[in-house]
Amino acid sequence: MIIGIPKETLPGEARVAMVPEVAARLVNKGFSLQLESGAGLPAGYHDDDYVAAGVEIVDRRQALAAELVVKVRKPSAEEVGGMREGALYVGFVETCNESDQVLQAMFDRGIRPLAMERIPRISRAQSMDALSSQSNIAGYRAAIEAAARYGRFFPLMMTSAGSVKPARVVVLGAGVAGLQAIATAKRLGAEVYAYDIRPETREQIESLGARAIDLDLGEEGSGEGGYARELSDEAKARQQALLAEELARAHVIITTALIPCRPAPVLITESVVKRMREGSVIVDLAAANGGNCPLTEADKVVRKHGVILVGHTNYPSMMAGDASTFYANNIANLLGIMVEQGESGPRLKDLSEDEITRAALMTPAGDSRH
Amino acid sequence: MIIGIPKETLPGEARVAMVPEVAARLVNKGFSLQLESGAGLPAGYHDDDYVAAGVEIVDRRQALAAELVVKVRKPSAEEVGGMREGALYVGFVETCNESDQVLQAMFDRGIRPLAMERIPRISRAQSMDALSSQSNIAGYRAAIEAAARYGRFFPLMMTSAGSVKPARVVVLGAGVAGLQAIATAKRLGAEVYAYDIRPETREQIESLGARAIDLDLGEEGSGEGGYARELSDEAKARQQALLAEELARAHVIITTALIPCRPAPVLITESVVKRMREGSVIVDLAAANGGNCPLTEADKVVRKHGVILVGHTNYPSMMAGDASTFYANNIANLLGIMVEQGESGPRLKDLSEDEITRAALMTPAGDSRH
Repeated sequence: MIIGIPKETLPGEARVAMVPEVAARLVNKGFSLQLESGAGLPAGYHDDDYVAAGVEIVDRRQALAAELVVKVRKPSAEEVGGMREGALYVGFVETCNESDQVLQAMFDRGIRPLAMERIPRISRAQSMDALSSQSNIAGYRAAIEAAARYGRFFPLMMTSAGSVKPARVVVLGAGVAGLQAIATAKRLGAEVYAYDIRPETREQIESLGARAIDLDLGEEGSGEGGYARELSDEAKARQQALLAEELARAHVIITTALIPCRPAPVLITESVVKRMREGSVIVDLAAANGGNCPLTEADKVVRKHGVILVGHTNYPSMMAGDASTFYANNIANLLGIMVEQGESGPRLKDLSEDEITRAALMTPAGDSRH
Repeated sequence: MIIGIPKETLPGEARVAMVPEVAARLVNKGFSLQLESGAGLPAGYHDDDYVAAGVEIVDRRQALAAELVVKVRKPSAEEVGGMREGALYVGFVETCNESDQVLQAMFDRGIRPLAMERIPRISRAQSMDALSSQSNIAGYRAAIEAAARYGRFFPLMMTSAGSVKPARVVVLGAGVAGLQAIATAKRLGAEVYAYDIRPETREQIESLGARAIDLDLGEEGSGEGGYARELSDEAKARQQALLAEELARAHVIITTALIPCRPAPVLITESVVKRMREGSVIVDLAAANGGNCPLTEADKVVRKHGVILVGHTNYPSMMAGDASTFYANNIANLLGIMVEQGESGPRLKDLSEDEITRAALMTPAGDSRH
């Protein structure tokens, strides 16, 4: 089975779907890997490293024409046009819209997309969960970004020139990204508070040494698959009001509240930003979906009311070396359940048999999303 | 006694010599403080905060015309021109050259400069040691900068999508900046190695959990006042060669080797940079003096041979809020030994009587520097 790895082409995307170390394992299992020349460079991996791992370096045309194409970001029309009829696509598909044109083009040509974002959140699939692996990286990088943008110390500093108190950091959303942001801010010595609408997160927040912020919203925020669900308008307003006091006192806010395919909930209003101390920092991981703060501007760092708002939309790409390693592992683990060992190497199984591949596989008849 | 605080005018300088919290203490002791309007803004302090502390907000002309002018960075010709005859200047003077024109202009008008960089390194003067207080900040910020520029994790990460090893960080120079860089990189979970030519630093390095790199140079590197001294050319060459192996394996190098008023020693040669892994980071705190790596460019971040070289020259200014607080404390503590309480408030003592003020005071006859 030939796996093609084309270079990512979305602006600012430095990740690659396969790294040499993981490629070597797949080659050992009998896969043939064909990488577009230079695909690994933005993440720090040279063609030579792939060759040493047993990967063939090919041109873009050939990488796209493989039986199975692995990618990070959503396929472009050009990429789908270059894929062979009946091929498999494994990667993020990034569509909220079943009538997405590129997706339709894939279906029309019998290309079967396995969407990494649809890997179910069951324990057997943890090692394939690219949403989690990349969110973990985003959380770490967001905390580093906050420390780099904040004009003061994170830790308590007691020196002969005086003492400064630790930074007061509030993390909104205690999913994978939020928990890693908490852990990283704690490592740096900040005083960390965290809030999530899912009450079951309290224990995780506290196990990282942060304090959980409790708000009485009058309704439950836990949704399917461990994700948060959208609140009623009334509960949202209540949440904003109750959070305002905590947030106005924060020096750094890292906010990660996202509901897939929905505008991000507004958690930090302009009036809260106005009340924050000069030089405070808001790192808004929901920037691509409108932001948890309406003042955030996607892909920009802006200063408003004396507060620095960081709107980067691709933190994993800022850590492309490790992000690609995790992602490649996710892909390799998924491939592990997609094939069985045949006489002449790995052979594709029926993807509808396993609940994981069944959930990931998108079909033209309507998709498997709830 | 009236103390004037003009706004800093060097490009990129965000610090201010006095902060509201420290100003309040000085006002309590009977000093009159006059701040140039807006001087604190770049560091996050509003005029209102100073007014609340008892400071008078004045224009630039008036702030410069005070009996005692406090500043952070070296005085400009314009500033000296605006100062009154016989005034006192307290701040960094930043000259290696006794025939410095601005310094001469001060002497010509009877202005007495107390250079913060000449505060002796004795225990009584620790609380006035601005070189140390600002170096501490530089070390923290340099480590944060390294983490933000490095496209991988600092800590060991064991996840369901695989494990990554901690970053290998080497810190060169274990003075105040180096030690804080070590501490911060350790906080973030990196594997830290450190090197200093002064053998007495080994214990401090190890007490922070880092490993000390030992090199046999055949001569001693400890100089006066706890600072490093310059090595012979032979010992320098030996040092480069012996360090090369350690440095080539590093993922991040934070280098802080500086000898005042001398070009920075070359510790990282181009051939070492070529051997480093793609995406490695060198944060060169000696950038203003030519760099510990000759590829560093002052005030720029460049990528050469796949390695990111960070050449910022003013880390304390990137943390202007806390840096100004520490600096203002240093100033206030120095003022504490410069005055005695008279009937109508603080009165200047004879500055030649105390060894600290005697060392800091620059005089036209030749200066007190060794």
